[in-house]
Amino acid sequence: MTIKKMYQEFKNLKDNDAISIEGWVFSNRGNDKIRFITLNDGSTVRNLQLVIKGDLINKSNVDNINSGSAISVKGNLSLTPSAPQPFEILVSELTLINKVDEDFPIQKKETSLEFLREVPHLRHRTNLIKTVMIIRNTLAFEIHKYFQEHDFINIASPIITSNDGEGAGETLVVDDENPEMFFKQKAFLGVTGQLHAEALAAGLKKVYTFAPTFRAENSHTSRHLAEFWMVEPEVAFYDLNKIILLADDLLKTVISNTIKKHPDEMDFLNKLSGEKLLLTLNKFLNNKLTILDYRDAVEKLKAFKDQFEEQNIHFGMDLASEHEKFISEKIVDGPVAIINYPKNIKAFYMHQNSDKQTVAAFDLLVPGIGELIGGSQREGDYNKLLNRMNELNMSIEPLQWYLDLRRFGYAYSSGFGIGFERLIMYVTGVANIRDVIPFPRIAGTIKM
Amino acid sequence: MTIKKMYQEFKNLKDNDAISIEGWVFSNRGNDKIRFITLNDGSTVRNLQLVIKGDLINKSNVDNINSGSAISVKGNLSLTPSAPQPFEILVSELTLINKVDEDFPIQKKETSLEFLREVPHLRHRTNLIKTVMIIRNTLAFEIHKYFQEHDFINIASPIITSNDGEGAGETLVVDDENPEMFFKQKAFLGVTGQLHAEALAAGLKKVYTFAPTFRAENSHTSRHLAEFWMVEPEVAFYDLNKIILLADDLLKTVISNTIKKHPDEMDFLNKLSGEKLLLTLNKFLNNKLTILDYRDAVEKLKAFKDQFEEQNIHFGMDLASEHEKFISEKIVDGPVAIINYPKNIKAFYMHQNSDKQTVAAFDLLVPGIGELIGGSQREGDYNKLLNRMNELNMSIEPLQWYLDLRRFGYAYSSGFGIGFERLIMYVTGVANIRDVIPFPRIAGTIKM
Repeated sequence: MTIKKMYQEFKNLKDNDAISIEGWVFSNRGNDKIRFITLNDGSTVRNLQLVIKGDLINKSNVDNINSGSAISVKGNLSLTPSAPQPFEILVSELTLINKVDEDFPIQKKETSLEFLREVPHLRHRTNLIKTVMIIRNTLAFEIHKYFQEHDFINIASPIITSNDGEGAGETLVVDDENPEMFFKQKAFLGVTGQLHAEALAAGLKKVYTFAPTFRAENSHTSRHLAEFWMVEPEVAFYDLNKIILLADDLLKTVISNTIKKHPDEMDFLNKLSGEKLLLTLNKFLNNKLTILDYRDAVEKLKAFKDQFEEQNIHFGMDLASEHEKFISEKIVDGPVAIINYPKNIKAFYMHQNSDKQTVAAFDLLVPGIGELIGGSQREGDYNKLLNRMNELNMSIEPLQWYLDLRRFGYAYSSGFGIGFERLIMYVTGVANIRDVIPFPRIAGTIKM
Repeated sequence: MTIKKMYQEFKNLKDNDAISIEGWVFSNRGNDKIRFITLNDGSTVRNLQLVIKGDLINKSNVDNINSGSAISVKGNLSLTPSAPQPFEILVSELTLINKVDEDFPIQKKETSLEFLREVPHLRHRTNLIKTVMIIRNTLAFEIHKYFQEHDFINIASPIITSNDGEGAGETLVVDDENPEMFFKQKAFLGVTGQLHAEALAAGLKKVYTFAPTFRAENSHTSRHLAEFWMVEPEVAFYDLNKIILLADDLLKTVISNTIKKHPDEMDFLNKLSGEKLLLTLNKFLNNKLTILDYRDAVEKLKAFKDQFEEQNIHFGMDLASEHEKFISEKIVDGPVAIINYPKNIKAFYMHQNSDKQTVAAFDLLVPGIGELIGGSQREGDYNKLLNRMNELNMSIEPLQWYLDLRRFGYAYSSGFGIGFERLIMYVTGVANIRDVIPFPRIAGTIKM
């Protein structure tokens, strides 16, 4: 029995039901006649109230039980319809398993997120980070469930690759410590599983990866990590339009199921956000996706250029975060997929449109955070792909296998990537990406 | 509609039902009056028979459609109760989307697994590798589902760590290509997520990782990869006995659900194994787990020492694969957990038993493959853990955070690791680990 289940099913619980539970103490107050301990077991942000009376207080050494201590408890349920919590436990047996030393940095009083980043091994014992980890888990499972229900095959793209990630110079290199190279060639940590996913989609049709991805990002922003998780579906026989509909449906299903599963956690996060979080999420859930051509987006933005730092709005520009937010929040007022970007600001593998200027790419923007998903239809024509790689001075040999897919019944395929931590930020309202992954990795330091 | 669903639900399908489907051609035979194309869409190892008649043969250029081609088809279902397959599709429209060049290395005739390893981007288009990928997907999802149904939180242990993996010298090093170190210290690819999972279990109670893991293994065996996936649950308040029961129940649930979901794929694999695979798996599923003390296992092995290459059977030895297989296949004749290993052959973090010689570790051995899972109760006492680390001359500072968990309400916890690819080998009967992961990574080479 978890505390989450007790709250979910308390209408089936009866006065005096025997309860046995283990967890960590949140608070311990009262006097030498009656004590109230609130207990958490990690299953929910809500705590369970324990009542300890009379002799048991001395016998169990309740004075020694400080916040953070691990205890094991037996007792009986008592329904308390007039109290703030619907029930409590009258304790008959209490064992202190491990107390916390006085320098335990997690205290009931508010602590700054910045300070908590110094103790990533302990910070999930605060209400906020615990809640984020619970939501993270449900989002991950709902993503797997969605794909399984839609006939996708979960595949493992390799993490170690011979591909330096389009030569952007932001890759991490892997080797052992011997003078000879372990792989007899330079090896990199993958920046995407997409190219390998395309290979598997040709034959398995609908595939997805859910795996860590790496970037040697030197920027210390609240939105970048050197190690983060990506979700990358790839579907053969899907064009740009179909893959956009999949992205929209996936996001809406996963987010709405997660909200439904966690009323207590979402309520806690919503209050923290000043009651804004659920408004933002519901605006996304309840609004139909708008599809907007990049050209039209640029034209629309021109009318508002005074409002931006970057005011040189023109075809060929990469939309900045301020522009993306403005489009979804002010122009569309809902989720929007911008499509058909200029080819020069997008990756080599994207399907070249017949206008010769644009590619069949899309970015999905949502109110509140901006870009959540980027994807495209892939170029299926061997020669067009080869020409584009040559235009970009890419070395062909390491990607010959990828080109060859086009010679071997590849059809066409489309896919996208979701930065999983960005999605968690969106659903939890947490502003810094370092607070939604247990042990964030950034340039310059490794904590724990 | 997938081909898998058509076979699953064909009793609800009616003669003449309209069908529209895309996929890849397996075979194309017949004459200029009638053609039979078998089609696969990656959802199952079974193919769908397409029948093309009369004018349509010329109109659709059926002669050009070779094995591996991507096609799109419209037609009508025709029930064929007397034929080997229960239904076929009478095609009314056929579009060749992409054919394959003549050097397509995947042909209908049998190809060696060794040769297929040279073309990892294409080999999933054989029946065997396709089947393995389908089973891999279901095993992965069933593992997630099991943990979710048992109140576990999926966590991300970091891949990049400052920990060189107990100093075994088998870790891979990560850095960018600039002269200064990217992380300002040496960084490694994790060999386990366990230590970080322990931190999160203290507070979240039941957690698990499912993530890639890395070893700079130089051994070119059929059981080792430099990059493989691990499943690592960690549960606070669980002792050795409870974690063994969890491991047994997890394996049995996941394997039996996977078999049930894939009658066609398991039938295919069973035939390939000479009808041995399902016998082996059922023997595991239908036999209660035996728990055997390491001391007793060694005594029992002594009686059979003539049968082993390593005949020096004594307390303190590490059991070799031959011993493990013998125990589960001959001595126990079913799944067995060996417990309480000598501390000198096990890791520093394991709970030290009161005999001062052994630790509360277990290995779960199954008939047919030997060790499938290794785990332990962790040492919860700060000083005992510190002493053990000192005995082993480990450097304390990088793991001070891990020690500190014991000062901050850690209670006790237990966990184990499943090498995910080993599990796939076991369930599919595939003998070489390189054939159960799409793009295997081993010393000396990176293919694709």
